[in-house]
Amino acid sequence: MFKSIRTDLAMEARELAQEQSKYDIPGVRVDEVEPEEDIKITRVEVLSKKGEESIGKPIGNYITLEVPGIRDRDPEYEEHVKQHLANEIRRLVRLNDNSVILIVGLGNWNVTPDAVGPKVVDRLLVTRHIFEYVPDQVDDRMRRVCAVAPGVLGITGIETGEIVKGIVDKVKPDLVIAIDALASRKTERIGTTIQVADTGINPGSGIGNKRMGLTKETLGVPALAVGIPTVVYAHTIGRDAIEMLINEFAGQTTPQSEFYNMLQSLDENHLNQIVGEVLAEGLGDLVVTPKEVDILIDDVAGIIADGINLAVHNGLSMEDVNRYLH
Amino acid sequence: MFKSIRTDLAMEARELAQEQSKYDIPGVRVDEVEPEEDIKITRVEVLSKKGEESIGKPIGNYITLEVPGIRDRDPEYEEHVKQHLANEIRRLVRLNDNSVILIVGLGNWNVTPDAVGPKVVDRLLVTRHIFEYVPDQVDDRMRRVCAVAPGVLGITGIETGEIVKGIVDKVKPDLVIAIDALASRKTERIGTTIQVADTGINPGSGIGNKRMGLTKETLGVPALAVGIPTVVYAHTIGRDAIEMLINEFAGQTTPQSEFYNMLQSLDENHLNQIVGEVLAEGLGDLVVTPKEVDILIDDVAGIIADGINLAVHNGLSMEDVNRYLH
Amino acid sequence: MFKSIRTDLAMEARELAQEQSKYDIPGVRVDEVEPEEDIKITRVEVLSKKGEESIGKPIGNYITLEVPGIRDRDPEYEEHVKQHLANEIRRLVRLNDNSVILIVGLGNWNVTPDAVGPKVVDRLLVTRHIFEYVPDQVDDRMRRVCAVAPGVLGITGIETGEIVKGIVDKVKPDLVIAIDALASRKTERIGTTIQVADTGINPGSGIGNKRMGLTKETLGVPALAVGIPTVVYAHTIGRDAIEMLINEFAGQTTPQSEFYNMLQSLDENHLNQIVGEVLAEGLGDLVVTPKEVDILIDDVAGIIADGINLAVHNGLSMEDVNRYLH
Amino acid sequence: MFKSIRTDLAMEARELAQEQSKYDIPGVRVDEVEPEEDIKITRVEVLSKKGEESIGKPIGNYITLEVPGIRDRDPEYEEHVKQHLANEIRRLVRLNDNSVILIVGLGNWNVTPDAVGPKVVDRLLVTRHIFEYVPDQVDDRMRRVCAVAPGVLGITGIETGEIVKGIVDKVKPDLVIAIDALASRKTERIGTTIQVADTGINPGSGIGNKRMGLTKETLGVPALAVGIPTVVYAHTIGRDAIEMLINEFAGQTTPQSEFYNMLQSLDENHLNQIVGEVLAEGLGDLVVTPKEVDILIDDVAGIIADGINLAVHNGLSMEDVNRYLH
Repeated sequence: MFKSIRTDLAMEARELAQEQSKYDIPGVRVDEVEPEEDIKITRVEVLSKKGEESIGKPIGNYITLEVPGIRDRDPEYEEHVKQHLANEIRRLVRLNDNSVILIVGLGNWNVTPDAVGPKVVDRLLVTRHIFEYVPDQVDDRMRRVCAVAPGVLGITGIETGEIVKGIVDKVKPDLVIAIDALASRKTERIGTTIQVADTGINPGSGIGNKRMGLTKETLGVPALAVGIPTVVYAHTIGRDAIEMLINEFAGQTTPQSEFYNMLQSLDENHLNQIVGEVLAEGLGDLVVTPKEVDILIDDVAGIIADGINLAVHNGLSMEDVNRYLH
Repeated sequence: MFKSIRTDLAMEARELAQEQSKYDIPGVRVDEVEPEEDIKITRVEVLSKKGEESIGKPIGNYITLEVPGIRDRDPEYEEHVKQHLANEIRRLVRLNDNSVILIVGLGNWNVTPDAVGPKVVDRLLVTRHIFEYVPDQVDDRMRRVCAVAPGVLGITGIETGEIVKGIVDKVKPDLVIAIDALASRKTERIGTTIQVADTGINPGSGIGNKRMGLTKETLGVPALAVGIPTVVYAHTIGRDAIEMLINEFAGQTTPQSEFYNMLQSLDENHLNQIVGEVLAEGLGDLVVTPKEVDILIDDVAGIIADGINLAVHNGLSMEDVNRYLH
Repeated sequence: MFKSIRTDLAMEARELAQEQSKYDIPGVRVDEVEPEEDIKITRVEVLSKKGEESIGKPIGNYITLEVPGIRDRDPEYEEHVKQHLANEIRRLVRLNDNSVILIVGLGNWNVTPDAVGPKVVDRLLVTRHIFEYVPDQVDDRMRRVCAVAPGVLGITGIETGEIVKGIVDKVKPDLVIAIDALASRKTERIGTTIQVADTGINPGSGIGNKRMGLTKETLGVPALAVGIPTVVYAHTIGRDAIEMLINEFAGQTTPQSEFYNMLQSLDENHLNQIVGEVLAEGLGDLVVTPKEVDILIDDVAGIIADGINLAVHNGLSMEDVNRYLH
Repeated sequence: MFKSIRTDLAMEARELAQEQSKYDIPGVRVDEVEPEEDIKITRVEVLSKKGEESIGKPIGNYITLEVPGIRDRDPEYEEHVKQHLANEIRRLVRLNDNSVILIVGLGNWNVTPDAVGPKVVDRLLVTRHIFEYVPDQVDDRMRRVCAVAPGVLGITGIETGEIVKGIVDKVKPDLVIAIDALASRKTERIGTTIQVADTGINPGSGIGNKRMGLTKETLGVPALAVGIPTVVYAHTIGRDAIEMLINEFAGQTTPQSEFYNMLQSLDENHLNQIVGEVLAEGLGDLVVTPKEVDILIDDVAGIIADGINLAVHNGLSMEDVNRYLH
């Protein structure tokens, strides 16, 4: 029934699949921990083709941090989130002191909810040029990090994927980390959930229009994706509202009544059509986003950037990162 | 039943009121013309306090241009829209050759759907400084125009209304034209409808958070508002979806049946509550906007700027405007 | 001989006057301290009309901090500079717990060496809106601070001075602090010298084109100016080069020789004319600036912003400021 | 004597060489035309290694358009300049209907005089994506054009040359056109001279810090460079001023006099040292630029973009270009 709901979060895809089945989803392993208050980490592993089909996400690891507390902008809590994010990233990648890491901030600078990738790039501790030109200023704990935001103003007529592939072929990194804005199923996840996946970015995922993926297959090197929901599709909102109403009716009705039969006869296509009538055509995808989305994006970009800064270098503290970024 | 639907368009407010009544709305006069294909102009006049209460908009004139064709980006059609917009603006203002016009582009540069005001300001034919410093370069047909985008990066701790009032008191314009991004009731109006109102901007209207209005009362000079819908509240989408489902059920049911009674018993608060459960709290207002909203805003800002350029100067053609803006 | 040298620094103006006289400059008092290594503070007080004429700066106090060490970007040194700047600002202003301070970041966002004012505004701890809308979140040590960067994109056809005067009349601050980019006489002062003056901003000073001053006379409230040299006029460079050559020749020549007489006959106008031939006309003023001026401006804007943050609030530490700015 | 003068213009390099020799420069051919008033075209061809050594520019063609009239912003004159620029570009490249052209806007967005490349990219008629995704919308006269501005915000730790090489290897263009801001010897050339060269961009040329060239050798495809002077090195100004003074003295002196001998004894190093004392160390290169450089850069970027638009497509008029860019 929920198949038309679009989500980029594997955790939500699994929940959707779970809602339709009383059994465990075959080929999918789930592990949840709450290391501290207001921080919940869900690790979904898609183990097989069967799991892939069940939840519509490729074989691999998907770690989700639910951190609703970041809306309160408490520096101490944010530092904990950064550390947990760094830890989860480190679970999925294997780096050594000679590793070169290329960080790709996807998304369009000119559309606020899509700007999270470029904003992360702005706050990374980039070091590759120091290794090349002033090697004596390198801190022992630093690794070679470079970064690019290909969707930023000024690239036209070339696919983002082509640009990134071209740069990867020249820079020859050992790891690509791609940051992207995602669509989730629920508005409460906007800006409060971070997904880390070792499957990279697949074509059509994220809220931008990417025709080409950034995966180990396309790039030739391991690709980690860090994503954060910044929108929910408007269609999802409409569908959720009518499901909610139908559930309420269903709870009040007598089995086999006229009304019960009517509710039974509603099918997926029909419900989508009802929502479709509410949403204009010809405007492309319609998305739901907070009106104050710029502040939220700024906050969360800072947290993701620091989580990555802590993860890719080897033992730098937040204090070190701040000093070097100064 | 629709009272929780928020719209900044007087035309929609009247339609909402009309839907609930089989009589004409008292105190409101409506006039519709279609001067050419794909251009529809609706002039709503709120005549009295009674009209004000019926549709929730202050006494005054509200002209709406529905121009769905601008999505096709056809230069010829766009030029017609600019001319009609200029004509409608001129219906509502009285200018002479010594008039000083201050144009205020409201909205936050950093949030794409709220950036229409600053983008209009960027493309205006501003002339007041020419009159003051190089008067011999003034074209006879020009009037004194100056412009400000107070919400652009760099003003903090001061209300937009205070800034504008301060500038009005110094510049002493004969007319203020304020441009603002609006919320409408229907997604199809996003980027395709332009409202011109001689009542100025009222507190809380538009999609930004304006605590103070820009009206003849607050500014001391006539204030014209030019607005364009760039978002629909997510709540509206949810409500529309469930209304649509209820209407469908209602059409299939037998009067006095169990189900008929259930539908009758649904009240406003209850429906809002259902939609509320779908939308997260704590994120502020959630709005629906096209994913490619940046291009749409760019297009429409150019059209509004030119409509104003044609309206405030005295007999300049689009060719003249383009040459001077060069 | 040096009268065609343009400088916005009172310290340099005094030095120029001093070079031409073996006596103390009448009506000007000078005090120099070096509170710590690499930090030199010069306090010039213009006491009378006579002093005003001698150095071409209005009666008042001009404090200059020479801090060449900031080019090394050492966080500890920078914190000392911020504290000294805060102390010197506090010497010149009188604030109490109810004071309202308006900070004005002058300059054009689009011209890198002129963007220091807007960049400072971006990093100020602005609090006036907290006092008004969430008074319970006010820290006892905060004062009411608001800020505006009037030259930022989006204000056209209106003088900066008019905008500021309009805002001052509405906000009614007890003190205006205006930040501006300056021209100095020597390139070594670019980005390494900060001037604080209680005379405000005078028309024509700074590197932008300001037709109206921001002084106690024009604004009706005390106006403090904080300025930083970001350019030297190209003419100054040319003049300095030929002075240098002439001095060298003069040292090698015999009094009353042909050559001695030739050097004696060189007058101010002639030297300016020689330099003028090197510099193209029709391009407006030509200025000298470091090629990497963007990084320098970013650094120095952060230092000035924090110096002001420490000065205008009452006992906040840099740690507090950073936490609140987060 | 002038060897320390840095210029990116081959025309100026030849003039400098010429000033030192009464004979033609061997290995260099020069051709000058003035096709209409206020437009002068100089075509310098470096024919041999000998020519290369004489003027310090690699073997190849260097065409310079001197167009001082563009400061007057007369649309008709500007259109002529665009046409001449297009003609000269076409002299140096060989395109057919299947050619793919990659245009690279070099330079740093954040430093005004270095932003000309990114600004040109913003105004190009880019078509490659139309050929790929909506081939039926292709105008017969269009060729496949794509563009990138690699120095725009968001690329760090990677050399511009690496980025461009990576993209060239993926896109496989038939021609690369690189746009760059240049340093000239004379301020009057700033914004009024355009150089087109079929030798590409050499390491260290232009005003940015490019460690790697963009030439046929490094890229594997023909590389055309379009450059425009936006700065003069401050050192050049100082040197020119003292040369001017020395020339004046020389004209007034008697051969074999004390003074004559002194002038004769001045050597290159000594003069550079005098200028060096005027210019601070530790700030990197110091450049001279007009204070209003932003407007100049905007104007000239529009002209270069259109010249390229006319040159790379096959028979589009300026009217066509404007319609498509809309």
